[in-house]
Amino acid sequence: MTAVAPAPELASSPNDTALAGLQAAEPRLVDVRPAGDAIPGMRRSLVLTSGPTMAWSDYSGGQRTAILGSVIYEGLAPDLESAAAALDRGEVDVAGCQDYSCVGSLAGVTSASMPVVVVEDGVGGERAFCTLFEGELPNRLNYGVWDNAVADNLRFLADVIGPALGEVIRQTGGIALLPIMQRALRQGDELHSRNTAASLLLLREIMPALLAAGEHGSALVSYLTAGDYFFLRPAMAAAKVMTKRMAGVPGSSIVTSMAMSCKSFGVQVSGLDGQWFTGPLPQFEHYKLTDGYTIADAQFMGGESIITEVAGLGAFAQTAAFTLQDYQGGVQNMIGANTDMYAITHTTSPIFRLPFFGFRGTPTGIDVRYVVETGISPVMDIGIAGAHGGQIGAGLARAPLQPFIDAAAALDAISTQHTTEGR
Amino acid sequence: MTAVAPAPELASSPNDTALAGLQAAEPRLVDVRPAGDAIPGMRRSLVLTSGPTMAWSDYSGGQRTAILGSVIYEGLAPDLESAAAALDRGEVDVAGCQDYSCVGSLAGVTSASMPVVVVEDGVGGERAFCTLFEGELPNRLNYGVWDNAVADNLRFLADVIGPALGEVIRQTGGIALLPIMQRALRQGDELHSRNTAASLLLLREIMPALLAAGEHGSALVSYLTAGDYFFLRPAMAAAKVMTKRMAGVPGSSIVTSMAMSCKSFGVQVSGLDGQWFTGPLPQFEHYKLTDGYTIADAQFMGGESIITEVAGLGAFAQTAAFTLQDYQGGVQNMIGANTDMYAITHTTSPIFRLPFFGFRGTPTGIDVRYVVETGISPVMDIGIAGAHGGQIGAGLARAPLQPFIDAAAALDAISTQHTTEGR
Repeated sequence: MTAVAPAPELASSPNDTALAGLQAAEPRLVDVRPAGDAIPGMRRSLVLTSGPTMAWSDYSGGQRTAILGSVIYEGLAPDLESAAAALDRGEVDVAGCQDYSCVGSLAGVTSASMPVVVVEDGVGGERAFCTLFEGELPNRLNYGVWDNAVADNLRFLADVIGPALGEVIRQTGGIALLPIMQRALRQGDELHSRNTAASLLLLREIMPALLAAGEHGSALVSYLTAGDYFFLRPAMAAAKVMTKRMAGVPGSSIVTSMAMSCKSFGVQVSGLDGQWFTGPLPQFEHYKLTDGYTIADAQFMGGESIITEVAGLGAFAQTAAFTLQDYQGGVQNMIGANTDMYAITHTTSPIFRLPFFGFRGTPTGIDVRYVVETGISPVMDIGIAGAHGGQIGAGLARAPLQPFIDAAAALDAISTQHTTEGR
Repeated sequence: MTAVAPAPELASSPNDTALAGLQAAEPRLVDVRPAGDAIPGMRRSLVLTSGPTMAWSDYSGGQRTAILGSVIYEGLAPDLESAAAALDRGEVDVAGCQDYSCVGSLAGVTSASMPVVVVEDGVGGERAFCTLFEGELPNRLNYGVWDNAVADNLRFLADVIGPALGEVIRQTGGIALLPIMQRALRQGDELHSRNTAASLLLLREIMPALLAAGEHGSALVSYLTAGDYFFLRPAMAAAKVMTKRMAGVPGSSIVTSMAMSCKSFGVQVSGLDGQWFTGPLPQFEHYKLTDGYTIADAQFMGGESIITEVAGLGAFAQTAAFTLQDYQGGVQNMIGANTDMYAITHTTSPIFRLPFFGFRGTPTGIDVRYVVETGISPVMDIGIAGAHGGQIGAGLARAPLQPFIDAAAALDAISTQHTTEGR
C-alpha cells in the first residue's frame, strides 16, 4: 500500500477548510420549544446570557436586571432581592449562551421555560438556539427591563405563541433558511438590523400550516406580522449553526464567534476552539436615537446577534439595506464600510450576494491576521439600549482591535511551538 | 362684489395643479370581480386591449391572437377563424383599455368574464381596473398565446381565484395601496418589473381574512405565493387611479398616460385630455432573454404597465431594485438612467422614495416640454414577449421622442391660439 500525499497546490489551507465548513452548512428551522426541553444541559436553575461566561458578580446594569427578572419569571424567587440572593448563594447559575449553542439577542437572557427557535444543520446535524422576539415594545427583558408588562408578555410567548409556532414549524417538516436569507438580501434586509423581508418570506413558507393552525392561528399571525424582527432570531441561530462548522480547525485564524457582555467584547477563533479573547466594548461610529436621547444615554448590556456578521451578514452585507442609512452614516459610508470588510475576510460568500456590488458575495470569514495587518476591525449593526433599559436606537459599531491582536498572537505562539517541536 | 385675483406667486401653475392631483390620490384595492360587472360600459361583445384604440384590422401577431382567444373564451366563437369573422363583421368590438379606465398588462386583453382588480380612489372616488396575473408559466393569453392550457388557467382564475379573492378583499373593507407601495420601494421592488415584496406585503394585509376564507383559502394562498408578480396588477390600477387625477388641467404639459399596442406607442398629456399622440414602438436599450433567444425574437404585442412610470415608479424608481441589474445594463447604468429621469419630470414624489438616493422622492410627472428640451425620453422597465408568444425576457426600453414633440407642439398651438384670441 502506497500512501500518496496530496500535491501541495491541492492541499487546503486551514482557513479554506474552516470556510468550506461554513459553506456546507444547511440551517433549517425545525422547531420552537422551551429552552429546558430543547437545549442539551439546560436546567431550571441555569440562566444563559450574552457574552463570554463571567462570574455572577461581574454582571451589572440592564444585563443584571434581565438575569434577575428571568429568575423571578421561572418562579425561583419572588422578587429582585431574593433572586439576587439565590444567584449569590449559587442556587442559580449563570453561563454564556454560546457554551450551550445558544445565541442571545442583546442581554440574551434565556431561561428554561422560555421558548427558543431550534435551528438544525441539515437533517440530524448540530443545533443552535435563540429565544423568540419579544415584540415591538421598547421595554423588553432583553433590553434590561423587568416589570409586570414584560413578565406578562414572556408568559404569553411561552403559553400561546411558542407552542402554536412549534406545532406549525413541526408540521412543515422544517424550513430551509438559506433560500429565505438569500432572497432577503435582494429585498433590503442585511439580516441583523433589518429582517423585514425575511420575516415575511418565512411567513409565506408556513402559511399552509398556519391555515390549518386552528384557534391560535390568528394570534400567531398577529405576532408574526406585528413587527419586522421575528426573523432575526432564526437568522442568529442559523448563523450560529454555520459558524460552528468553522470551529476547531488547527491553525485556522478565522473568527468563529463574536459576543458582548455588559463588560467586554469577545472573539473566538477557529484554531483555538472554545477560547475567548476579550477586550473593551465597541464604539458607535454612527447611530440614530429616539428623540430626546443622546449617545451618553446608551448602555451596553450584552449582545450576540453579531454572530450574523461572523457569518457574512449584518454590517458585512449592509449595502443590501440602504434603508438603514439614517442609522449608519448615510449611503456613501455604508458602501465604504461594507467595502472595507473585504480587506479583512478570507473569501466571499457563494450564496449571500449583494445587489449593489453586482451580486458580489458578502465578505465572509474574518481573519484575525488580516484585522491585525490592516488595522481594520469589524463593523457591526447593533441595537442600542438605554441607561434605564429599553431600546433607544440603533447604529453601526466598531469592534475593539485588542481581542484580534491577542488571538493572532496566541495562534502565532502555537505555530512557533509546533515549529520548535518539529526540529 | 369685487373679484380678487390670486397673487401671482400663490397661483399654481397648470403643472403644479396636475401634480397636486396625483399626490392627493389614495388608491385602495376594494374588490376583485368579473370585468363585465366591474367596468362601466363593459359588455360580452367587447374586448379591451392595450394601447390607443385602433381598428380591428390593425391588430396583428400576439396581440391579435390574444384578442381572438378571448372571443373563444367568452363563448362567442368556437375557433380562431370564426372569432376573426365575428370581429370582422363587427359582432365583437375592440377598444383600448384606457378608454374604460382599465389598464392592460402586455397584450392586456380583458373580456367580460375575466376577473379584474378594482382600485378605488379614496372612498367612493374614481376606479381603475386590471386583470389578474395569469401565473408564472411563460405561455399566457397576455403574452399572445391561446391554447387549452391557457384557456383552462383563465377558467380557474374566473371560477376559483377571482371569486375567493374578491370575497377576501371585500371582507377587509379595502386595502390602502400607497403604504404597501412605499414599503416595497424599501424592499427591492420598483413596482413594475419587480413586485416581490409588495406581493407579500399585500398577502400580509389579507392574512386575517385568508384564515377565515374556508375551502378556497389554500388555493388562494397557492396562487398568491406561487409567483412574485401578483402585485403588478394592483400597482397598475393604482397608478391609473393616480394619473387620472392629473388629467384635464388646461395648459398642463404633464404626461398622464403612456401605452403601446402591437403597432405604436402613445402618450396622453394633461392639457389635451383624451387625445393620443402616437409614434413608433420603443427600443430596448438593455435586456436579458431566456437562453436560446436573441432580441430579434422579441415581439411587441402591446403594454400599458408603463402607467407605473407615469406615476413615478418602474424605471423611474429603478435604483430601488438593483436586483434587476442583469436586465437593465448593470448597477451604474441603472443609477444613470434613474438620475436622468429627474431632468424630464416636474417634481419628486413626497411618498415614493429611493433609498440609494438618500430617500429622494422618485422623479414624478413627465413634462413633454422637458422631454423636448433635453432630448431625453422616458425609460421603461418592460417584459419581453417572443415572436411565437410567451415571455422570453425583460429589459429596459426607451420611449420614442416623436409623441412628446407632437404633444408639446399641440399644446403650443392651443396656447398661441388663446393668446391670439385674447388680443
